[in-house]
Amino acid sequence: MDRTHDFASLGALIQPRSVAVIGASADPSRIGGRPIRWMLEAGYAGRIFPVNPGRTEVQGLTAHASIADLPEVPEAAILAVPAAHVAGALAELGQRGTRAAIVFSSGFAEMGEAGAAEQARLVATARGHGLRILGPNSLGLFNGRTRFYASFTTTFETGWPHDGGISIVSQSGAFGSHIATLARNRGLGAPLCVMTGNEADVSVGEVIGWLASDPATKVIVAYMEGIKHGPTLLAGLAAARAARKPVILMKVGRSALGSHAAQSHTASIAGDDLVADAVFRDSGAIRADSAEQLLDFAEVAAHGIYPSRNRLGVMTVSGGAGVLMSDAAEAHGIEMPAMPQATQDRLRAVLPFAAFRNPLDCTAHLVNDHSLLDSFLGAMMDEGDYDAILSFFAQIAGTEPFGTALFDTLAQMRHRWPERLQVLVAVVNEAQRRRYANIGVPVFEDATRAVAAVGAMIRLGAAFGAPPAPRPALPAPAPLPAGPLTETTAKAVLAAHGIPAAPEQLCTDAAGAGAAAQAMGFPVVMKIVSPDIAHKTEIGGVLLGISSATEVGASFATLIERARTARPEAQIDGVLVARQIVGGTELIMGIKADPVFGPIAMVGLGGIFTEVLADVALRQCPVTTAEAERMILSLRGAALLTGARGRPPADIPAAARALAALSVFAASQGSRIGSIDLNPVVVLPLGQGAFALDALIEPGAPPD
Amino acid sequence: MDRTHDFASLGALIQPRSVAVIGASADPSRIGGRPIRWMLEAGYAGRIFPVNPGRTEVQGLTAHASIADLPEVPEAAILAVPAAHVAGALAELGQRGTRAAIVFSSGFAEMGEAGAAEQARLVATARGHGLRILGPNSLGLFNGRTRFYASFTTTFETGWPHDGGISIVSQSGAFGSHIATLARNRGLGAPLCVMTGNEADVSVGEVIGWLASDPATKVIVAYMEGIKHGPTLLAGLAAARAARKPVILMKVGRSALGSHAAQSHTASIAGDDLVADAVFRDSGAIRADSAEQLLDFAEVAAHGIYPSRNRLGVMTVSGGAGVLMSDAAEAHGIEMPAMPQATQDRLRAVLPFAAFRNPLDCTAHLVNDHSLLDSFLGAMMDEGDYDAILSFFAQIAGTEPFGTALFDTLAQMRHRWPERLQVLVAVVNEAQRRRYANIGVPVFEDATRAVAAVGAMIRLGAAFGAPPAPRPALPAPAPLPAGPLTETTAKAVLAAHGIPAAPEQLCTDAAGAGAAAQAMGFPVVMKIVSPDIAHKTEIGGVLLGISSATEVGASFATLIERARTARPEAQIDGVLVARQIVGGTELIMGIKADPVFGPIAMVGLGGIFTEVLADVALRQCPVTTAEAERMILSLRGAALLTGARGRPPADIPAAARALAALSVFAASQGSRIGSIDLNPVVVLPLGQGAFALDALIEPGAPPD
Repeated sequence: MDRTHDFASLGALIQPRSVAVIGASADPSRIGGRPIRWMLEAGYAGRIFPVNPGRTEVQGLTAHASIADLPEVPEAAILAVPAAHVAGALAELGQRGTRAAIVFSSGFAEMGEAGAAEQARLVATARGHGLRILGPNSLGLFNGRTRFYASFTTTFETGWPHDGGISIVSQSGAFGSHIATLARNRGLGAPLCVMTGNEADVSVGEVIGWLASDPATKVIVAYMEGIKHGPTLLAGLAAARAARKPVILMKVGRSALGSHAAQSHTASIAGDDLVADAVFRDSGAIRADSAEQLLDFAEVAAHGIYPSRNRLGVMTVSGGAGVLMSDAAEAHGIEMPAMPQATQDRLRAVLPFAAFRNPLDCTAHLVNDHSLLDSFLGAMMDEGDYDAILSFFAQIAGTEPFGTALFDTLAQMRHRWPERLQVLVAVVNEAQRRRYANIGVPVFEDATRAVAAVGAMIRLGAAFGAPPAPRPALPAPAPLPAGPLTETTAKAVLAAHGIPAAPEQLCTDAAGAGAAAQAMGFPVVMKIVSPDIAHKTEIGGVLLGISSATEVGASFATLIERARTARPEAQIDGVLVARQIVGGTELIMGIKADPVFGPIAMVGLGGIFTEVLADVALRQCPVTTAEAERMILSLRGAALLTGARGRPPADIPAAARALAALSVFAASQGSRIGSIDLNPVVVLPLGQGAFALDALIEPGAPPD
Repeated sequence: MDRTHDFASLGALIQPRSVAVIGASADPSRIGGRPIRWMLEAGYAGRIFPVNPGRTEVQGLTAHASIADLPEVPEAAILAVPAAHVAGALAELGQRGTRAAIVFSSGFAEMGEAGAAEQARLVATARGHGLRILGPNSLGLFNGRTRFYASFTTTFETGWPHDGGISIVSQSGAFGSHIATLARNRGLGAPLCVMTGNEADVSVGEVIGWLASDPATKVIVAYMEGIKHGPTLLAGLAAARAARKPVILMKVGRSALGSHAAQSHTASIAGDDLVADAVFRDSGAIRADSAEQLLDFAEVAAHGIYPSRNRLGVMTVSGGAGVLMSDAAEAHGIEMPAMPQATQDRLRAVLPFAAFRNPLDCTAHLVNDHSLLDSFLGAMMDEGDYDAILSFFAQIAGTEPFGTALFDTLAQMRHRWPERLQVLVAVVNEAQRRRYANIGVPVFEDATRAVAAVGAMIRLGAAFGAPPAPRPALPAPAPLPAGPLTETTAKAVLAAHGIPAAPEQLCTDAAGAGAAAQAMGFPVVMKIVSPDIAHKTEIGGVLLGISSATEVGASFATLIERARTARPEAQIDGVLVARQIVGGTELIMGIKADPVFGPIAMVGLGGIFTEVLADVALRQCPVTTAEAERMILSLRGAALLTGARGRPPADIPAAARALAALSVFAASQGSRIGSIDLNPVVVLPLGQGAFALDALIEPGAPPD
């Protein structure tokens, strides 16, 4: 489906000046009655036109018999009619010039093939008129900023959302209104929530894109179950990043696997969710694990302070809480540099048995002498030079007179250093929590959650501070040989694109193999070459450590014999003789054709360990050499390459060049590539290169 | 220090009938005044005797000039006097027959060596009189059940704890009262909190032991920063498990490393915290990551329902929430078996577009037809046969009339299946939450937290259902050879205890080495043997793949030469010739002498991967063969041994026998062993055995 990133056209959907309700109900508890009830109670700023052929009045408003009878063209419409009537209503609305339709009706793609066909008809109808569709099967949307409550959610029975800068977009109606309710109960200002349902037209990504330029939106919270169109989501995320608006998102389905799982190593390791994780990270979005974390991050982000450096200072009145927070900081990749030694010495003279390294453990003495608060926190700002300060005062913060002293000090700190993030761990009452929020200090009861939120803000600061990773230019795609590729062809193709393999030669008889081995030097590896045998080891088609001409001859015969026995029908091109690379560290590199995000480059350590332990790095193709090196260094086992336990450092630059070249090749070929496995790529000591010892290219699925 | 597990003697500390306050203050805001204020306000059931030489009255009570002047022997005493006066007061109290002292005073072991010496003097004084000490440097304790508020915490300024079955024990006063405050604010019944401070005498483990037989305690919440005496903690945990009382504990300091880190591979991998983790798991305790999780688990555990099997059924009105909870269940090791196919088919006939596998996604239709609730949940109980049911209804549960229907249905389910765990994810108000709690249904707003809590209850059910892992009997310790052990001696010692090594022979000249190699068959490995060279590879002291008698001679000379050059002073015993084991999968096994829990057995996969990726299993020694096999199979990379990607299954039984034998040997030797590294242990295909190819035994630290 062709989609443009016409984010601006969503204005008619999210903040229309008038709305028709097709299938309006006089019963405010019914689906066609609820949005009218909400808009009337809240005081929608625009005009509401109920459409109901059987009534002249609906909930006190004049009702109209049909769309044709409407006294003016409504900018938006809500459709609460049976599925069979939706297409007709959309055509009428489109003809009259309505710009956006919110389709509550279900019975479309979520109900199988016939529904999907009907849904496609809706889209075609709407496209013809430039009419945007939210849904179908959508719980609707609400925009408390204009009191446009175009949803049949029941959440407003227990209260209205608060005003503020957090906007929510959710594919699921149930989960979207769950998040909105939790946000309201926490006192967060999250007045806008768009629930995209089946996403026949408008998707989560597109709403993110619109919110990126919505002046009232400061923080975007997103919830997704699947991603239909990767480029739209990436465009939305890029727009938000460019506007310095945090996107905190949650995507469920971590255990899902790609459809190529059975065919390719790379695809079986790089499950869809790992790919999404990598893409989100690259795009500067912050992924949350739970609804609670989604709102924790949004709550802190709403203060708009994103540390420009990764420097956290921790103050605590409990040594154990200091350890707890340090451990959590390490787990979240947060740096906690020590205070300068001179400062530590000076402060220790004031309070001998406290600890001033970082965390600053001031002990309960601080409670007895409030004046120390100011000098300790001041020293952390001035001399510790931290970009974020996390303070643990627990229930003491809620007691007097200490509580007031603490508040006054933190307020001063906020005033003097407005660009520094201050987060407080404290047990305080609602009024105190609001007071802290008003000076820009979020309060957590749980230290671990506070650290996670600080980590998210530091990652946002890094994303906003750095430009998106540059993408290398792509060459025009070189034509690939037709049909299945042998290992030899695959290596030749890759070598031509800058991914080196070990010296090798395809031989068709034992004598030629012997000569080739003699020329390249022993030991050699020998492998059967056949377009019909993809996984050679399964038939014993690879022999290692062959160290004489005699052995080469015997091995040639063995390989041909094994191939004939295992796959009598296979076409056998010959035997590949290759120099056996001795030593070095094994990587696996590969390409996965992700259905959402296109070619994805993968790198991991050593064959089977990668598969079992899933220690891999992924990026959307293409990547630069610098980015490829960052991928390799991000592996948990990277120490194997950088010189752990006396091993020589490996040629990481060569491996990075190969990975980047692979990614450029894959991106230039696009959907022509199904998957690529280079397993293993041996990385020799620094300066000696990296070589693919095996290569498998599977062609892409034929175009639809 | 000699300690007994005299848990019963803590009764005088936790629920005394009378208490003296030494250093009683008339000012209720001072440390010596606060506990009197709390006890008077709350109405302590016992008698309070303030001791203050300067006053005849304190906060309305008759004050006494000295301990000698007290009109009766107080069962317990609070000491709020300067450090220098504590020892004298303890002696006087002991002489009079007081059974327990709560020492608020600080200035002891937390302040360096002089303080530690003074603290030791307190303990010696108290021991002589059979007087138990809480602290020093303790925030005290409170027991709302008898209104014994013997603490100077400020938390009661904002309210009293609620009655209930949760008891808290915390080493840290700041964190203990933080947890207690959070519990109270959540409405949890956690009226008892003991804060052990410096633990000169009473430790967290001992308090757990006392709580295990306290009839009022149903759930034990514990917080620790360090563990001073492992056996006491284990005895406390064992008592709680025997009494079927859950212990939910938190121990901070996950990144701490053992003191042997530099010397032994095993010790550097098996950090103190990994050891604690393994020991907690074995003892049936549940470890929490945060204060919030500690209370989540305690809140659910307080209902006393611990599923006997690992079978979770999930019902949801949001498909995405179902995926989210399934993913979280998988991460927590929770099984979600499918509903029987016949049941799925029957229910699908009722509600065609819902999903009935597990999760049961009933969609919002359920809200329109409440009667379905009963039949769906009933089918999950009757036919799904789940031991735990988790239902996601989000904010819908808080709306009417659905909310009432849901409550009534769950109440019926609780009545009909009282032994099944029911947890609800819902956004409800405080009154609704309390109503659910009253019928035994805990409510979470966050689905992810709910799943974690269900996982904890399933682990508790397993711990209560199974007896503690049996421990093999220990032989009398065989005497070890004196002085540092060579590899040869180490292997001989281990072989005598059932840990097999590859065939090998120590040779003192090249000719002997050649003959030995010829006898055991090529290829062979050769290694230098010297008591002064522990890590042979660092000096090039190991040669592999030697395949002829000529090579053996040359290698002998090379090894002697390398050893002489690298360590001219070393005593060289000769060269070890061993059959090189070809193929198989490499494990590392080892023993770490943990300062708290004694010898710990470790197993992991393949040398450097274990070290870099830390995929290891740990258990306190000794373990049975069955337990050793469970350890091996618990490795993330266990698939390498069980036959991944066409590899032959490895001889796991042989590896388990070796590991169990190693653990028995280490346990019998006790502190005589500092560490043992078997690296690698090669596990051959099933039936062919497992052999240690290298062995290093470091003797234990000399006794103090």
